[in-house]
Amino acid sequence: MTSTSESSTHSPVETAAVVAHGRIDVRGAVERVRAVADVSGVTIVDEPERAQLTVAVGGDGTILRTLARLLGTGVPVIGINYGRVGFLASIVPERLEEDLGRVFGGEYRTIEQPTLEAQLDGEAFVAVNDVVATSSTLGRMIELGWAIAGEDLGVVSCDGMICSTPSGSTAYNLSNGGPVLVRGIDAMAITFIAPHSLEARPLVVPRGAELTVRNASADVGAAVLVDGHRSGDLAPERTLAIRLGEQRSLLATLPETTFFGRYRETFTS
Amino acid sequence: MTSTSESSTHSPVETAAVVAHGRIDVRGAVERVRAVADVSGVTIVDEPERAQLTVAVGGDGTILRTLARLLGTGVPVIGINYGRVGFLASIVPERLEEDLGRVFGGEYRTIEQPTLEAQLDGEAFVAVNDVVATSSTLGRMIELGWAIAGEDLGVVSCDGMICSTPSGSTAYNLSNGGPVLVRGIDAMAITFIAPHSLEARPLVVPRGAELTVRNASADVGAAVLVDGHRSGDLAPERTLAIRLGEQRSLLATLPETTFFGRYRETFTS
Amino acid sequence: MTSTSESSTHSPVETAAVVAHGRIDVRGAVERVRAVADVSGVTIVDEPERAQLTVAVGGDGTILRTLARLLGTGVPVIGINYGRVGFLASIVPERLEEDLGRVFGGEYRTIEQPTLEAQLDGEAFVAVNDVVATSSTLGRMIELGWAIAGEDLGVVSCDGMICSTPSGSTAYNLSNGGPVLVRGIDAMAITFIAPHSLEARPLVVPRGAELTVRNASADVGAAVLVDGHRSGDLAPERTLAIRLGEQRSLLATLPETTFFGRYRETFTS
Amino acid sequence: MTSTSESSTHSPVETAAVVAHGRIDVRGAVERVRAVADVSGVTIVDEPERAQLTVAVGGDGTILRTLARLLGTGVPVIGINYGRVGFLASIVPERLEEDLGRVFGGEYRTIEQPTLEAQLDGEAFVAVNDVVATSSTLGRMIELGWAIAGEDLGVVSCDGMICSTPSGSTAYNLSNGGPVLVRGIDAMAITFIAPHSLEARPLVVPRGAELTVRNASADVGAAVLVDGHRSGDLAPERTLAIRLGEQRSLLATLPETTFFGRYRETFTS
Repeated sequence: MTSTSESSTHSPVETAAVVAHGRIDVRGAVERVRAVADVSGVTIVDEPERAQLTVAVGGDGTILRTLARLLGTGVPVIGINYGRVGFLASIVPERLEEDLGRVFGGEYRTIEQPTLEAQLDGEAFVAVNDVVATSSTLGRMIELGWAIAGEDLGVVSCDGMICSTPSGSTAYNLSNGGPVLVRGIDAMAITFIAPHSLEARPLVVPRGAELTVRNASADVGAAVLVDGHRSGDLAPERTLAIRLGEQRSLLATLPETTFFGRYRETFTS
Repeated sequence: MTSTSESSTHSPVETAAVVAHGRIDVRGAVERVRAVADVSGVTIVDEPERAQLTVAVGGDGTILRTLARLLGTGVPVIGINYGRVGFLASIVPERLEEDLGRVFGGEYRTIEQPTLEAQLDGEAFVAVNDVVATSSTLGRMIELGWAIAGEDLGVVSCDGMICSTPSGSTAYNLSNGGPVLVRGIDAMAITFIAPHSLEARPLVVPRGAELTVRNASADVGAAVLVDGHRSGDLAPERTLAIRLGEQRSLLATLPETTFFGRYRETFTS
Repeated sequence: MTSTSESSTHSPVETAAVVAHGRIDVRGAVERVRAVADVSGVTIVDEPERAQLTVAVGGDGTILRTLARLLGTGVPVIGINYGRVGFLASIVPERLEEDLGRVFGGEYRTIEQPTLEAQLDGEAFVAVNDVVATSSTLGRMIELGWAIAGEDLGVVSCDGMICSTPSGSTAYNLSNGGPVLVRGIDAMAITFIAPHSLEARPLVVPRGAELTVRNASADVGAAVLVDGHRSGDLAPERTLAIRLGEQRSLLATLPETTFFGRYRETFTS
Repeated sequence: MTSTSESSTHSPVETAAVVAHGRIDVRGAVERVRAVADVSGVTIVDEPERAQLTVAVGGDGTILRTLARLLGTGVPVIGINYGRVGFLASIVPERLEEDLGRVFGGEYRTIEQPTLEAQLDGEAFVAVNDVVATSSTLGRMIELGWAIAGEDLGVVSCDGMICSTPSGSTAYNLSNGGPVLVRGIDAMAITFIAPHSLEARPLVVPRGAELTVRNASADVGAAVLVDGHRSGDLAPERTLAIRLGEQRSLLATLPETTFFGRYRETFTS
């Protein structure tokens, strides 16, 4: 939305990498990517960190992991959708050759978006989409104590809590009633999962304000999911801290792929 | 709400049972119940099925299990709240002696409420509050196909689905945005948990219409929770059927304990 | 949903009436209805009350008014949709001749649904869809005191309140977050419009429980809308009473038109 | 939340103004303000624009109008709550002398917050809390076409739409399901009022992205409310444009009054 976070003029791509480590078999698609690279004069390299551009083939999970892996490298990631939702991907299989050819020719935009930094038991995690603390016992609610910028906000009985970047706002956050954060906002959304108290409403919190989440249950453990992957546990009385991170993810899209276009295609059809 | 489902004149209780098998240590409270029985001339019997009235000491979970156990026996259950929420209990620990004495003297109402019957892989379950089908893999959505009265309603990407009785409508159903079904309604509420499609809205379905839920995910299993307890699994392509059951649960309350009074005390303070 | 409320075998229609007093010019459609009647051997009569079946041509507003007018007469109403939403209509203009010919031949179902009775300042109103009390001053909230079955439920700051039949549950009630009441439920839904207190959740209330709504604002008037039409005013300290009514509306549909089919066509495309 | 937008060290106040033009009679309170000023050595001036600090006595409406009037002057506004909600006020009547004495002594914080600029038929408006476009006919929905940053987002059937600043996010926006924007966010929230399409979800939009709203109804007019006051009409096919404005409102609070403290006091008790 702002001039500093998007750019759409690029020189032709000389080196690219392909990533496809999802659950779905996309070997045929990877071959097609290699063929387009061949035709376009692009050299495929093994390490995404050393490429000019990385092509992620799979669902949103694959694209998220690739974005996370490449944080800080300046290498943008373009997604080819072989998953179910595909909010992050801008190329569909049917148009792989045509659209990827354009991308290799320099026709793409890059979008910088905020990430989250989480601290749990002395370990640090970075999330591109969201950090979730959720009861790890099926059918048992947890009690989560929470605070923002050091101010105690009480305890909520719930299934869990989602802290999401603008990129993640259209994913699990939206399913739980959270707001859509349009690209360009430097903030995170906090949304409870199945809160039993009726006052727990979604909040949007600016950069600089840290969220802390404490497991206030005596006997129910919580899992911490970073971009959908279980990354640790929030045992009773442990605390998880989350804030907007220093690094930014770097997603590549076709020039004509807009946030609202993707939103409408995904949610209103 | 209707004359047939509530009754508030009773003869004094002659035999009662005490149930207290929850996670909380309530031995002191059980002793106090026995002392009140002693003073009131009530004989405590071991088997709840043979008592005139059963006293459940604990949280809503304990009361639910006791209600379920006593379905079809005609024995009402009165709850003493040693849990967190206590929506079903009408006696608080501070007034145990006074209020239980009144109950043993015949001062209580009984409330008949609909139950749910669920069928899963040839096995039948009865629920007092709710039947939930929920992804059994943390962080993975499931696809649930659903139909009502034989009419296919499509597939919803979600964390799960809740089918709730009026009694259960103020529990997990409410946390997920479902409506409150006031006592006296012979219907069940169907509410999705974190649906990714925005059209999945809570429905209220009358007696006689069966809900079927099919796990349409290729590779994610679902757990089936009956009144909060894991009772089975909904493997991919298996189907769960739920309808209002023939039996009715029989909750006893103090004469002055009303649905709305409990609702306001629990949710608006 | 139950055998008593729906019937789908009818003898051929001998007399029909046409109603079309909406805002939209549907004279061409009325001519087409008359032509189908002519071909089918159906005599068009002037008074809907004396017809075997009444055809309402227009939007949902026209169908609602016709249903209300014919309460108690036993004359069913079939709708041809010339409006925007058309949830109640089962015939679309493109298939008018074909589908209306089938209806005149006896191929239709009739659906009996509960109505609401409202009392305001000694005057009685009957609603097919909903009764709404809403602030009559743009930009000013009102305070509504409410009670169900004589039990006081406090005061809510809001724009208004909707009391809806099952038929009306998919209309304004749904827009305000209320639940869908599937056909066959003998209950009404109560949903607040823009409540400022976060605990005001939709309730479903059984037959026999009366809702009273009091304008507790010192200086803001409220309008009372019956099926969308302003029917009176709720001045400060006046009270409106609403309950499920004795009469039932009688909607005719094509045999293949189901509640869920209409729901999916209307809301999920 | 950020160092640039809040400041809590001030020199003692030398000149102050009092504003109290609300619906409520607060003459007694105004006398008390004058008495505190007298004791504190503060000169009361007639024109708020020339004071160092302005005291607004009344409800949130009075404080909003005073904030709007003083935009661009650098004069902060402190509120004494004589209204119903009082989210913006930080002094309660019972502590007027003590707390206002502290404020006059320099003990207060000032909070800069974004405003909205609206354009309607060539006229410009500035809002401190929100701009609302709403059907001006009771009981009639409107069709609103909308676009963000020039991108068309379709047409929504609804009662209206709210565009809110962070300050306004806890007001009408919250009543309609919009998210809370915590102080420090430079964004606006867009929330529909009673949308009939289920996909209309709250959006948060960053500075620089303009919202345009078009009345797409053929025959229903819309009113435009700026901070709750009717400021114009959106006739069929007219367009309203809204974006974050250049000016910032300047609210003064007691040093100990925090956003979350006010939020909890107002909504969770």
